[in-house]
Amino acid sequence: MDTAFFSDLLASIAERGRSVLKLSPWPRDAENRAASLADMCRALLSGRGEASGVALAGEILGRYRTLGDDDKAAFFRALAEDFGPDRDRVENAFARWSATGGEAAAADVHYASEPRRQELFRRLNRAPGATAALVAMRADLIEAMRADRGLSVLDRDFLHLFGSWFNRGFLVLRRIDWSSPAAILEKIIRYEAVHAIGGWDDLRRRIDSVDRRCYAFFHPALVDEPLIFVEVALTLTPPAAIAPLLAERRAHVAPDKARAATFYSISNCQQGLSGVSFGNFLIKQVVEEIRRELPRIETFVTLSPVPGLRAWVDACDDPAAEALAAAVRDAALDEDWPTKPDEEAAMRKALEPLAAYYFLRARRNDGRVVDPVARFHLGNGARLERINPMGDLSDKGLAESFGVMVNYQYDLGEIERNHEAFANQGVVAASSAVKKAAAGVKARATAAALPAPGD
Amino acid sequence: MDTAFFSDLLASIAERGRSVLKLSPWPRDAENRAASLADMCRALLSGRGEASGVALAGEILGRYRTLGDDDKAAFFRALAEDFGPDRDRVENAFARWSATGGEAAAADVHYASEPRRQELFRRLNRAPGATAALVAMRADLIEAMRADRGLSVLDRDFLHLFGSWFNRGFLVLRRIDWSSPAAILEKIIRYEAVHAIGGWDDLRRRIDSVDRRCYAFFHPALVDEPLIFVEVALTLTPPAAIAPLLAERRAHVAPDKARAATFYSISNCQQGLSGVSFGNFLIKQVVEEIRRELPRIETFVTLSPVPGLRAWVDACDDPAAEALAAAVRDAALDEDWPTKPDEEAAMRKALEPLAAYYFLRARRNDGRVVDPVARFHLGNGARLERINPMGDLSDKGLAESFGVMVNYQYDLGEIERNHEAFANQGVVAASSAVKKAAAGVKARATAAALPAPGD
Amino acid sequence: MDTAFFSDLLASIAERGRSVLKLSPWPRDAENRAASLADMCRALLSGRGEASGVALAGEILGRYRTLGDDDKAAFFRALAEDFGPDRDRVENAFARWSATGGEAAAADVHYASEPRRQELFRRLNRAPGATAALVAMRADLIEAMRADRGLSVLDRDFLHLFGSWFNRGFLVLRRIDWSSPAAILEKIIRYEAVHAIGGWDDLRRRIDSVDRRCYAFFHPALVDEPLIFVEVALTLTPPAAIAPLLAERRAHVAPDKARAATFYSISNCQQGLSGVSFGNFLIKQVVEEIRRELPRIETFVTLSPVPGLRAWVDACDDPAAEALAAAVRDAALDEDWPTKPDEEAAMRKALEPLAAYYFLRARRNDGRVVDPVARFHLGNGARLERINPMGDLSDKGLAESFGVMVNYQYDLGEIERNHEAFANQGVVAASSAVKKAAAGVKARATAAALPAPGD
Amino acid sequence: MDTAFFSDLLASIAERGRSVLKLSPWPRDAENRAASLADMCRALLSGRGEASGVALAGEILGRYRTLGDDDKAAFFRALAEDFGPDRDRVENAFARWSATGGEAAAADVHYASEPRRQELFRRLNRAPGATAALVAMRADLIEAMRADRGLSVLDRDFLHLFGSWFNRGFLVLRRIDWSSPAAILEKIIRYEAVHAIGGWDDLRRRIDSVDRRCYAFFHPALVDEPLIFVEVALTLTPPAAIAPLLAERRAHVAPDKARAATFYSISNCQQGLSGVSFGNFLIKQVVEEIRRELPRIETFVTLSPVPGLRAWVDACDDPAAEALAAAVRDAALDEDWPTKPDEEAAMRKALEPLAAYYFLRARRNDGRVVDPVARFHLGNGARLERINPMGDLSDKGLAESFGVMVNYQYDLGEIERNHEAFANQGVVAASSAVKKAAAGVKARATAAALPAPGD
Repeated sequence: MDTAFFSDLLASIAERGRSVLKLSPWPRDAENRAASLADMCRALLSGRGEASGVALAGEILGRYRTLGDDDKAAFFRALAEDFGPDRDRVENAFARWSATGGEAAAADVHYASEPRRQELFRRLNRAPGATAALVAMRADLIEAMRADRGLSVLDRDFLHLFGSWFNRGFLVLRRIDWSSPAAILEKIIRYEAVHAIGGWDDLRRRIDSVDRRCYAFFHPALVDEPLIFVEVALTLTPPAAIAPLLAERRAHVAPDKARAATFYSISNCQQGLSGVSFGNFLIKQVVEEIRRELPRIETFVTLSPVPGLRAWVDACDDPAAEALAAAVRDAALDEDWPTKPDEEAAMRKALEPLAAYYFLRARRNDGRVVDPVARFHLGNGARLERINPMGDLSDKGLAESFGVMVNYQYDLGEIERNHEAFANQGVVAASSAVKKAAAGVKARATAAALPAPGD
Repeated sequence: MDTAFFSDLLASIAERGRSVLKLSPWPRDAENRAASLADMCRALLSGRGEASGVALAGEILGRYRTLGDDDKAAFFRALAEDFGPDRDRVENAFARWSATGGEAAAADVHYASEPRRQELFRRLNRAPGATAALVAMRADLIEAMRADRGLSVLDRDFLHLFGSWFNRGFLVLRRIDWSSPAAILEKIIRYEAVHAIGGWDDLRRRIDSVDRRCYAFFHPALVDEPLIFVEVALTLTPPAAIAPLLAERRAHVAPDKARAATFYSISNCQQGLSGVSFGNFLIKQVVEEIRRELPRIETFVTLSPVPGLRAWVDACDDPAAEALAAAVRDAALDEDWPTKPDEEAAMRKALEPLAAYYFLRARRNDGRVVDPVARFHLGNGARLERINPMGDLSDKGLAESFGVMVNYQYDLGEIERNHEAFANQGVVAASSAVKKAAAGVKARATAAALPAPGD
Repeated sequence: MDTAFFSDLLASIAERGRSVLKLSPWPRDAENRAASLADMCRALLSGRGEASGVALAGEILGRYRTLGDDDKAAFFRALAEDFGPDRDRVENAFARWSATGGEAAAADVHYASEPRRQELFRRLNRAPGATAALVAMRADLIEAMRADRGLSVLDRDFLHLFGSWFNRGFLVLRRIDWSSPAAILEKIIRYEAVHAIGGWDDLRRRIDSVDRRCYAFFHPALVDEPLIFVEVALTLTPPAAIAPLLAERRAHVAPDKARAATFYSISNCQQGLSGVSFGNFLIKQVVEEIRRELPRIETFVTLSPVPGLRAWVDACDDPAAEALAAAVRDAALDEDWPTKPDEEAAMRKALEPLAAYYFLRARRNDGRVVDPVARFHLGNGARLERINPMGDLSDKGLAESFGVMVNYQYDLGEIERNHEAFANQGVVAASSAVKKAAAGVKARATAAALPAPGD
Repeated sequence: MDTAFFSDLLASIAERGRSVLKLSPWPRDAENRAASLADMCRALLSGRGEASGVALAGEILGRYRTLGDDDKAAFFRALAEDFGPDRDRVENAFARWSATGGEAAAADVHYASEPRRQELFRRLNRAPGATAALVAMRADLIEAMRADRGLSVLDRDFLHLFGSWFNRGFLVLRRIDWSSPAAILEKIIRYEAVHAIGGWDDLRRRIDSVDRRCYAFFHPALVDEPLIFVEVALTLTPPAAIAPLLAERRAHVAPDKARAATFYSISNCQQGLSGVSFGNFLIKQVVEEIRRELPRIETFVTLSPVPGLRAWVDACDDPAAEALAAAVRDAALDEDWPTKPDEEAAMRKALEPLAAYYFLRARRNDGRVVDPVARFHLGNGARLERINPMGDLSDKGLAESFGVMVNYQYDLGEIERNHEAFANQGVVAASSAVKKAAAGVKARATAAALPAPGD
């Protein structure tokens, strides 16, 4: 309610301000609009925080919203090309620094070389609702960059600024439940990126059951917009498959009986904030939050997809793994394999070591772990605890990983060690079961077919 | 309550984090503490947002708080000298840019030359309560800079970062009244810088009367800390003196009868945020707020001190004004002049033109208006409306301006024009009465004595 | 969040209390449960607010919830028969009063004759969540009364107590919009009694458009439970039909352009509070609320169903109206009449006077206006402003009123007069158009068929 | 904020309503005002919740406030005499019940005999702010009853209604701390009845220290008005004296180190709610609240005054105790006894058994325990744990109990048993030390002087 109050208020200020602006009328021909908007940006930069600054900022953001895609791209090009640093100032500052050294001179180089875009963004941000508008603008920019990589110079400035504005210290964790505003819940439905939410009833099952939790980070300037959220299931033991967690009808676990908390979905909400990392902080804070509420929960795991597995299997030319990979590929040609007991059992036996190998041994050309989800959790210090063939038999699950899911475990006592070993030496922390499964690949390397079920 | 909740939570995270840090013990000898802290800062910068980052940041800020003044100064020197940009990176970036030009290369110069302090501050800010701690650290720095101007390079980074973090778009206006938390009210009492508040009863008169308002800007990360606040009196006409506004017993004006809103005190609260300007935005938003609540109020003025008047009179060697200045100085030698009707009347007649001249004609060596309060309001687009001799007969008022106060008027229709004229040509917007009074100075220039009361 | 906090807290108190209760175990055979519960109620009454009172109350309410319908009925009979006043006390008090007269003695009769049920309900109410549980209990009672009218003595006590507890002075008006908690919105969907809400998208159209409002009364002890709510459309002129208001796609009216506010649905939410009237207060407060927000809105009307019209027409034997009624009945035999232009036009011409007559002249045997919705609005002081044939062509609308809807207008200047005239002399306030239409019935009394469209 | 919003809104409704009332002007002569007001009350009762009801109720309460004490008394007499039950209805109902018996007839007697005052109060309560106004009206009534006991019939109705409206189930517990609104804190200062709070600094010591807590019950209709509050000190062991708890400078106890929570002050705030008991519920809920927050606290005690001790000693003619009482009286003639080591030691030795005897053996004529504070805590199920001579050496403490204070202990395991034994057999639960001290009195009965310090 305060929110509405303030946004009304700010809107009225901006409106009044607008009336004192002597704005050039909005060009009728689309071509000139980007140029006109760039001119307004120059005017905003030339002022010094004066009367009309807030109104002018609001007007620029408002007009921007009405641009078509091409005009937006043209506007971005103008920002990228004409709002960089002042060349003379940079050269002079560098010359001074070359001559004198010294910290003050070095700082001069930095401040002299600040692209004027950054001050522009800071001034735009003074208008009501501007932070959301700027985040949306960067989402547009990311689209535009597909066609014009030269815009990345502009994107770098956005990313730098958002990294500072959306600093962890400014984020607020809130639990999302059935007493949350509909305006927020609707966004949870929309933004869920891992296991789609099929409407309000499905949402309610995920946030309004005694054994479910949902938490999100918010920024004070984006009141109704979650930045990232995580869905958690409280269970007796870590689950091996997603379907039972999402089932319409299922037995509920009394929270004080639960011993495991499973993070089964983490979704970033704002395309315009991509590159600003929240996930690591979110998981750790939610672990603390749940420990506080339910001290008996000792195990914190994920139930995670393996989005890169199938592509890797398809392209696998690793001598140790290729035979097994080929066998899996072949078996998967029969789309009904999950429903045929023998074939299913054989796939289980093949997928576990193959996936273990994929995580522990396979590497990209740059030497990094192949799976993006693995890079995230391992980078946070988690341990690859278990491989679950048949974890996700949805079309998507089969298509990206033959149905394999995994559990990453967050163990506070070893997070630091795991993180360092992964970051510095690329060591993947894994349970002995996973290590053993990976080790088995080599042994099987010569087998040309799936293992028999009873193998 | 949320606040307490989150700070508890965050504290517990930090605590847990600390237990996994392998921190070197805190040196017993003070001399090594600054160095030890700088080492911890290096460790924080070397990590990549990992598990212990938040805990390490909290530990640095906690230890910093225990340092004595000398150790703080030593720590600041370390930050100023050892956390600048990487010299090689800057040179390489500059060389690339010199060779290629181009916006991306220019941006590289900027990002390569960022003092590592800035990333350090951003990482420190992830800890619970860090924003307040960093603001307090800069307040310490400002103290330390008195003895060591070389620290200004560090201050520049603080100021840049705070300018971005405390952007207008992130501030929230809140009315302060008798239903506000005591924790905030106590700070209003403490931070009032213009007309001291003599305790809770005095405070109550200023915020809990039907014809008084108080508004403050807050930042979401500094929950109980006002950044700047303004006190407003609703009156029938703009007041000419401060004492009646602050009197213990006085008639109250029904808000719907009031026609003027007088800003009689504006106080910045955070020494650590000096240089980040809020006042301009605050005044304009409060004007809107009051217009919304009380549409019949049409006149928005200040009742402001003139802190630079007496010093200027004392040193006055302006040929046009010096005779009048001398006469005023002489008359003021009798400290009881305000209680002697004839002398008081003579002073009134002399002070009005002299003050008008001070505002309209007198200039500092750099060509700027002498009075700092005038620079603020005129820079915001206000008009010097009226000079009030005998406006503030407190010791402080007599000491700094012979008791003169002035009204600056905020007229939405002319703010923009006034601001531009002042910013670009140094033109002081003033009412015709003030202009006329200033013009009178020259005419009097030859008079060697105060005008007679009936003059 | 506070709510959850307090309910947790209270739950834990109750739980602890329960552990100190030495409760008899819950009988296995259903038959004895009502008796066992009644015994617990006696125990609660015998205590004096002591340690276990809150726990015992909570236990009674908890066990009650597990009863089947028959057991609930048995429990109600026990309350009705065994928890009345103490016969001896009443007789003694009456004797004293007969002997002495006097106000104190009269009061004694009152307090001596209070059914012990009332004190029982008050003590039950001390448990956490008890108010909601008691409201639910009365809903059960209302069901049970269908089979056993003797329970009405118990219902009278509930009604008396709820009338006191849900006094207007304790209700809070809140706007319902898209930022309201889902837990409340879901109830709006469920409780809408006039024009069913078809799910979350339909709800959103009704509460999240610029030209729609929804307000509800809440009681502080029933946090997530609206008591009654009203849906309002802001329009240029009072609407004559419901379908355009509820259409999925429709033009929106800017609030500052709207000149009429139409109350198109009022729903009571709590069966257990039937007989406690909120609607009158709700409408009047919402009128004020909207006037405050949108001073340009001058017309406040309803768009209301006429639920009694068809039944009255079907049974009509009023000499003046029966011919017209018969013609309407006949015409309605063709269910497609609304789609046939000639028949539709004829029905319009017939229904308007017939409905006007129904409101203005027709009366029940007890002399009251036939239509229950009319009794409500006319009793509140509204005026019957306009009759809208073809107002609601849904199955329900055709079935209960041949599609007729009406507008009642709330005119602050005449509410008092209308109310008094209606309450005291049964005078129906109506616009001259409606009066004229009613007067026309007599003239048509001899016509045996629908008027021709062009008539 | 909401509060202000609603009260504004309600005020505007009432105002509008007033304009449609045709109120008789307020009589100029005071004598007729009470009668005029009573007439308005009759008008309010005669209406049926119509348009002007809320406005009329507001007007009555507003005019009431302007009455002088005598007029209020006259108004109360009118309410007591002319707003009782309808005599005929009562007699008819009684006759029907005599004839038929039956629960419905019995209920008729009850409802027929309801004094019309009660419906009047319920209707008055519909106006904005009415609940507070009615509570204030009863405070006036209690004053007026000193002179006119006949008004008690009116008071009984107030008490009955308030008992229902302020039912435990409608109260909300809130912690009071330094983030509470000043409007509430100021009332804590004003209402503290046990150990006066000497201003804001003293208040802050009591609510803003890590080892202090304060909780209050609120009613939703009295937003800024605490009903009752308790101050709690967290300590290592139960304290024996009040001064160290209230000292300006004292060591603080870390909450997780504390093992005892001491309730050292409980104050009722609303004179108009006297007779409605909250204290029992408050203590028990605060015990739960603290156990939740600080599970290590196991001991819950009070540090309580003994307000009846000195008066009992002064009048003591109990053969067993009178010699000791006389000796104490004599010793207390020297007002400096507390500062003289020998006399102080002798008093300690005498006061402990004498006070123990006072609690355990002494009884009023009606058989009840003499001390009102003891009756409260023992009635709640607490145990008299320890007698602390020299517990309160303030003037008040010495004057009412020779400085004796006591600790009552709340032990959840025995509260129920203690309560029952006290309520039913008058048994005072006490520690063995207190029992032993009381037993010692008889042995000393013959001694004519204080025991020697080393005795």
